[in-house]
Amino acid sequence: MPHNLFYAQSGGVTAVINASACGVIETARSYPDTIGTVLAGQNGILGALNEALYDTGHETDSAIAALRHTPGGAFGSCRFKLNDPTATPDHFRRLFDVFKAHNIGYFLYNGGGDSQDTAHKVQQWATKTDYPLTVVGIPKTVDNDLAGTDCCPGFGSVAKYVALSVREAALDVASMSATSTKVFVLEVMGRHAGWIAAAGGLAAAEGEDATPPVLILFPERPLNPEAFLQAVAAKVDIHGYCTVVVSEGLKDVSGNFLSEAGTKDAFGHAQLGGVAPMVVGLIKKQLGLKCHWAVADYLQRSARHIASAVDVEQAYAVGKAAVEFALAGEDGILPVIIREATHPEYRWSIGKLALSEVANIEKPLPENYMSKDGFSITVKARAYLTPLIQGEACPPYLDGLPDYVTLENRLVPKKLADFDL
Amino acid sequence: MPHNLFYAQSGGVTAVINASACGVIETARSYPDTIGTVLAGQNGILGALNEALYDTGHETDSAIAALRHTPGGAFGSCRFKLNDPTATPDHFRRLFDVFKAHNIGYFLYNGGGDSQDTAHKVQQWATKTDYPLTVVGIPKTVDNDLAGTDCCPGFGSVAKYVALSVREAALDVASMSATSTKVFVLEVMGRHAGWIAAAGGLAAAEGEDATPPVLILFPERPLNPEAFLQAVAAKVDIHGYCTVVVSEGLKDVSGNFLSEAGTKDAFGHAQLGGVAPMVVGLIKKQLGLKCHWAVADYLQRSARHIASAVDVEQAYAVGKAAVEFALAGEDGILPVIIREATHPEYRWSIGKLALSEVANIEKPLPENYMSKDGFSITVKARAYLTPLIQGEACPPYLDGLPDYVTLENRLVPKKLADFDL
Repeated sequence: MPHNLFYAQSGGVTAVINASACGVIETARSYPDTIGTVLAGQNGILGALNEALYDTGHETDSAIAALRHTPGGAFGSCRFKLNDPTATPDHFRRLFDVFKAHNIGYFLYNGGGDSQDTAHKVQQWATKTDYPLTVVGIPKTVDNDLAGTDCCPGFGSVAKYVALSVREAALDVASMSATSTKVFVLEVMGRHAGWIAAAGGLAAAEGEDATPPVLILFPERPLNPEAFLQAVAAKVDIHGYCTVVVSEGLKDVSGNFLSEAGTKDAFGHAQLGGVAPMVVGLIKKQLGLKCHWAVADYLQRSARHIASAVDVEQAYAVGKAAVEFALAGEDGILPVIIREATHPEYRWSIGKLALSEVANIEKPLPENYMSKDGFSITVKARAYLTPLIQGEACPPYLDGLPDYVTLENRLVPKKLADFDL
Repeated sequence: MPHNLFYAQSGGVTAVINASACGVIETARSYPDTIGTVLAGQNGILGALNEALYDTGHETDSAIAALRHTPGGAFGSCRFKLNDPTATPDHFRRLFDVFKAHNIGYFLYNGGGDSQDTAHKVQQWATKTDYPLTVVGIPKTVDNDLAGTDCCPGFGSVAKYVALSVREAALDVASMSATSTKVFVLEVMGRHAGWIAAAGGLAAAEGEDATPPVLILFPERPLNPEAFLQAVAAKVDIHGYCTVVVSEGLKDVSGNFLSEAGTKDAFGHAQLGGVAPMVVGLIKKQLGLKCHWAVADYLQRSARHIASAVDVEQAYAVGKAAVEFALAGEDGILPVIIREATHPEYRWSIGKLALSEVANIEKPLPENYMSKDGFSITVKARAYLTPLIQGEACPPYLDGLPDYVTLENRLVPKKLADFDL
């Protein structure tokens, strides 16, 4: 009897994580002799711990195909990280009891650095206990800070959203600047790495005096208020207006987040938000300029309607590759994106890395992607970013709105007693 | 010698005000015997006062055609309202000196209620002084609060943006809700009228328990914290998560804006922003639920990439109609949208109203568009709103981003001495 495949989504979702799910399930369905059914975890690894498994065999081919254009996480995600096996061995025993009860021979985990750490621990436990499980990760994160891959599925779409939003809002503020708003500030995600903020730089053409004027506040560069205000004033002087893209993770010179909400997420990371109004307060007070501000928050990572076609393709491809690697017996690896050639002849392929090499390692924005003054991106950054936002992969529309799919998500009958986490 | 036509853009710009400009200029170009050139005011009426007039005759046909898909105000807008002629007669004298010097016989003003008040005053002065000027307004406002028209160009696109953004973000929060964010709050525009907030209701299907759950906080309904928190708790209880759309103009029971920034715009209206984090604070404190929030601000009114095709058509049509009305000698009127039939057989036509009937009059959201509990929209509201967000009018893309046009905007040589406002 062929083994079933466990698939789950973890961490913050993206506009294209379901495209990876689509790649996994469509590919698995094409190997009926070697893969039984894809059992999707309800809310990531929690689905396995709770024996809450969706039998995707009940979903029609067209519903699965529609995952390719549907944002969010179709099976529910989670912010839950497995502890070290020595700390909570009962969690690992439970996981493998569930795997055994449901004939699971493949474990595919779709997430970022924290999630690949979970996948890595599962693989180590399987090896240690001689359980026949093939573990393959699937990369995902809007932050693009996953090590070992040229880019990470999810990032290209948020990059496109941010660049496009800045370009559009800049046309608005340019129109208003003579008698009203002169500065527009957009707050974007990227807790520790400025990849998303950097994408704002694509809104403008290359060159110091290109329009629209865009200043970027990277999380890698502590805010120097004087230098920043001088830069804003200079842009307003030349262009009459200015746009600012600020990372939620902007820090002061002492290394403190400018906007520390005081709460932490389940991974222990500080939960941020609201730095845009602080930047606006600074500009208003010191320069007396009228400002507007926006916080994109979830809009940026769920904007499937304006996803990058390249990103959608890559998200699907890593899902497909994960199944193929698993079938080839490649255990403990992560499919990654390899850049073969850059813009405008951008070509990419799928490679692989050991999970041990990527788990918990953050990839910062390279120093040479930020300009000397720290407020814009370099030609190098532009060459890296531009290919990732290419192409539009519009979803179908129904009655004026995107026609996103909601799966049936039928749970498999439980075979084990309940487990208290 | 045919008279020239003065056209200008006023007030907050929209995703489609340039489509109206496109309608004006393309139509004017088709009447070369009766209309000289279209002189566009630099920054609205200020362009006339300052004799800063762009000769659109220098723009290519393809650049003018590209206005149809370009957001913002191509000639610059302004927040400047003409005083009563008895208060500042010199402003009116100056305006007409400029009109005379540049052979202007048509005055087309593209804006909302405040701007149509300006157009009305210009018309009255022309009549009083026997200057041969035909004055026609062109409706525009994202707020949809202009009286006398079934809807207002600019609104349909922001309505589509808001409905779509809520639908997308709801899929995100639904995925995260088991272990993380349970409530997502989106702040939208609409200072005194809840039209934009109402559009958030379209994210969900009809029916009380439809998904995604959407609660709306209208500016017409003062916040009742207890009732609101109870509604949030109920939605989270049923669905596991909830989305909230809050108008920037939400008031407390005493009639004060919840988020009064303390500054006022040039029309004397209070400048708002930042009510979303206040609503989140309330939910966190009273219900202990993890929340995320976004403020759409300019993104919502500049999102030409996801404009409603119906809105774009109507914006173009009122521009075209304004020129045709002017040529027919219809003085002091505003082309308006008339609804001939509603969804799904939506049909509309262009009608006209006297400027005196629309200037400075705000159209609130009808009582029967809001549910009894005040947190959602009724079937009536849905029937009104749905036709306005139909169709996608995607701009062309270049290198991954919308290819928006920037006009040459060549100023006509000045003929008069400078004028101090």
